[in-house]
Amino acid sequence: MTPDELKALVRTVPDFPAKGIQFRDITTLIGHGAGLKHAVRHLAERCDAAGADAIAGMEARGFIFGAAVAIELGIGFIPVRKPGKLPIETIGVDYALEYGTDRLEIDPGAIGEGHEVAIVDDLIATGGTALAAVELLRMAGARVPLAAFVIDLPDLGGADRLRGAGVAVETLMEFEGD
Amino acid sequence: MTPDELKALVRTVPDFPAKGIQFRDITTLIGHGAGLKHAVRHLAERCDAAGADAIAGMEARGFIFGAAVAIELGIGFIPVRKPGKLPIETIGVDYALEYGTDRLEIDPGAIGEGHEVAIVDDLIATGGTALAAVELLRMAGARVPLAAFVIDLPDLGGADRLRGAGVAVETLMEFEGD
Repeated sequence: MTPDELKALVRTVPDFPAKGIQFRDITTLIGHGAGLKHAVRHLAERCDAAGADAIAGMEARGFIFGAAVAIELGIGFIPVRKPGKLPIETIGVDYALEYGTDRLEIDPGAIGEGHEVAIVDDLIATGGTALAAVELLRMAGARVPLAAFVIDLPDLGGADRLRGAGVAVETLMEFEGD
Repeated sequence: MTPDELKALVRTVPDFPAKGIQFRDITTLIGHGAGLKHAVRHLAERCDAAGADAIAGMEARGFIFGAAVAIELGIGFIPVRKPGKLPIETIGVDYALEYGTDRLEIDPGAIGEGHEVAIVDDLIATGGTALAAVELLRMAGARVPLAAFVIDLPDLGGADRLRGAGVAVETLMEFEGD
């Protein structure tokens, strides 16, 4: 499968969630067996090259690619969850959204000091959630060598923000003009 | 890895979310590379034997095992989502919880008439969410030959309810007395 063939599996929904926004919908790629497998294999190669010994993914869509990459590499998966979902004492971080704030939580016992944890998600836009996840994983004692995404929206600057925070970024495709 | 070794990777949290409830926390199994891979391979074998040509998983933890099983089999994954998450016209089903109701939605375009869709999730308790997902997939024209779970809590009757609805059930381990 070529990069263009993979990109063609992403559906663009105009004017969602607001007028003028082109929503890049990965549901159609996820529903395509060969496309899904191809995307996961390529994300896994990059995480492997970065020396990851665990993968973290953010609820909910990050679970789809993140866990699959972990399994491909035979390493563990750390679910980064919304508040109140984990049944144990968590560590968490609050972060700003366009309107209001949100919070991410992890099980601190899931991460050993010095672990190399790569973040995997479907899409990087402004990078707010990914930066919060980096902060949280570092609080838990991990290094975060890489964040890998299927889709980059480079006009929104998230990948640059992550690189500015000392995290390498790999993506499988870009949509410009977003 | 033996069944007992896999089961030992599940952490039991007493008195969560309420006093007297033993919460079976799969986060620890998910964080264990070999355990995660083993569980996914066994779920995938059962879905393959049932003739599944797509896998459906319910947000959010169902995404972890469901997508991984789909990739293992080289077939597509259908995310069954909470309301308002999909950017297109969905079909949905409301279902009762202990207090109030909830709703599941899918992209009807993800499912062709006559598709054989297996449901994969981490745990079956009363089966309310899984039964709602079965109803929704059937509304979309799919057959649902199998629902496969890592953990069964047989005392809560969910697996029996699913079988009563004409869906075969496979699970990798049981915790009784819940």
